[in-house]
Amino acid sequence: MDIEKATEIGFCFGVKRALKILEDTIRDHGEVETLGPVVHNQQVVDKFSQIGVKVVTAPDQIKGNVAVIPSHGVSPNMLEELASRGLKIMDTTCPNVRKAQTAARELSEAGFWVIIFGDPTHPEVKGILGWAGHRGMATLDSKSITKLDELPSRLGILSQTTRNPAQFVDFVDNIIGSLTSQIDELRIINTLCNITKNRQTAALELAKKVSLMIVVGGRNSANTRCLAQVCSSTGTETHHIETADEIKDAWLKGQGSIGITTGTSIPHSVIDEVMLKLEEMRRRLDAD
Amino acid sequence: MDIEKATEIGFCFGVKRALKILEDTIRDHGEVETLGPVVHNQQVVDKFSQIGVKVVTAPDQIKGNVAVIPSHGVSPNMLEELASRGLKIMDTTCPNVRKAQTAARELSEAGFWVIIFGDPTHPEVKGILGWAGHRGMATLDSKSITKLDELPSRLGILSQTTRNPAQFVDFVDNIIGSLTSQIDELRIINTLCNITKNRQTAALELAKKVSLMIVVGGRNSANTRCLAQVCSSTGTETHHIETADEIKDAWLKGQGSIGITTGTSIPHSVIDEVMLKLEEMRRRLDAD
Repeated sequence: MDIEKATEIGFCFGVKRALKILEDTIRDHGEVETLGPVVHNQQVVDKFSQIGVKVVTAPDQIKGNVAVIPSHGVSPNMLEELASRGLKIMDTTCPNVRKAQTAARELSEAGFWVIIFGDPTHPEVKGILGWAGHRGMATLDSKSITKLDELPSRLGILSQTTRNPAQFVDFVDNIIGSLTSQIDELRIINTLCNITKNRQTAALELAKKVSLMIVVGGRNSANTRCLAQVCSSTGTETHHIETADEIKDAWLKGQGSIGITTGTSIPHSVIDEVMLKLEEMRRRLDAD
Repeated sequence: MDIEKATEIGFCFGVKRALKILEDTIRDHGEVETLGPVVHNQQVVDKFSQIGVKVVTAPDQIKGNVAVIPSHGVSPNMLEELASRGLKIMDTTCPNVRKAQTAARELSEAGFWVIIFGDPTHPEVKGILGWAGHRGMATLDSKSITKLDELPSRLGILSQTTRNPAQFVDFVDNIIGSLTSQIDELRIINTLCNITKNRQTAALELAKKVSLMIVVGGRNSANTRCLAQVCSSTGTETHHIETADEIKDAWLKGQGSIGITTGTSIPHSVIDEVMLKLEEMRRRLDAD
């Protein structure tokens, strides 16, 4: 039984950058609070909580002098509220998310109604919608827009950074097809993250080759969930796990080969544990 | 046998406006020259030629002091050349065509590569491409763009004003589908003429009801050719004519009902002749 890692795994540059800012902030300010998890990985959050980083869900829960903005970003209203409380703001927003926020703001300021292709409950998407001044909507369903009371004639479309490119194209196609006669102008800005996209492509290639795919990453990590979706779309048995101890013996029995891929906020220590666990299970199965 | 006219026929406002400017110019300046036919209808051009309007194909053929820009517009280079020759320019460019020219210029100036969905040999399309500074292409085939040596990452798409909306949507869909991963930003500006669009819709409804459609308009009139396409797409026998004397007895034999529609540059006198001819043929057939 072969075990093969995808070519692109572990932290992406945005996560590395966010954690570096957080580490520097801890060094300079001691105990700090993050507004939501700094990245969508429980193991990373747990590691930082051991050195005094607290996760809060609202500005009024911040007791210290420093507020850390997580890598998924927040709305401009949230930034203002934090500033009005006199807090020092350390911003770990991923540059790719920042690009989407800027696109949302510019479209909205230019008079466009902004559609964000994304999960409306995800922090990144909520933040981006905030930068559009809420003059728009976030949805994964292209039909949502046709249900509006009044159809906007100038539409801007962008995407949550971690979505699947092919699905974004379908979404845009459906909107163009159903609204063409009403639309005066349409601006589509590609805010998909290239790292996420390349990781999806690499995972897809690997999933086509192997008989079992294991996708490692946070349960609330959008890019990890997309990876799992992409892998299982090939028909290959796919499991999304957060830690090594979730892997079950039964998954491995009778498999010819196993592929591993990971979300962008998964530390190498977790990947190493997964590899060790798989090696150990393989030896045990071979010995049986 | 019923004969029914579509709800929208005869000159559109852009053609009325162009002819008004031309008439005023003749009144003020006497003999004038137009750079190409003022509108795409030979009967109209013939009528004006009888009162001294000459059609020329290049600026160096203009002998008088006045140059009339036709309703399909020209490129900015052409305007400059005419101005440099010291000619007084009377511009009949249709406001809808002007909108497309402005869109092409703004997209190009903002760094976008401009794709015009249109017939590259049509004067309107050549003019619009000129306003894009030739930083783009005009085509009816979405595959043309994938054949370029280097794919532009920021694309602006607009349409010749007289194209069919459904075909424009297909064109945009195909481009999005084939280029998605390379495109950073896409701006689509709806430069389709509403009058043309409504006329196509009305013609389509009529074509579905009748057994024979007669489409009256210039052979080189893009909007008339689109009308004929739309009508014949319903499966109804369709004939594109310029004048009443082209109608053949054989077309009418055995028909239950006849529908008439016209391009936007067709004078009411021609429509009246067509109606008279059809009435006369109907009477003859009924008497047989």
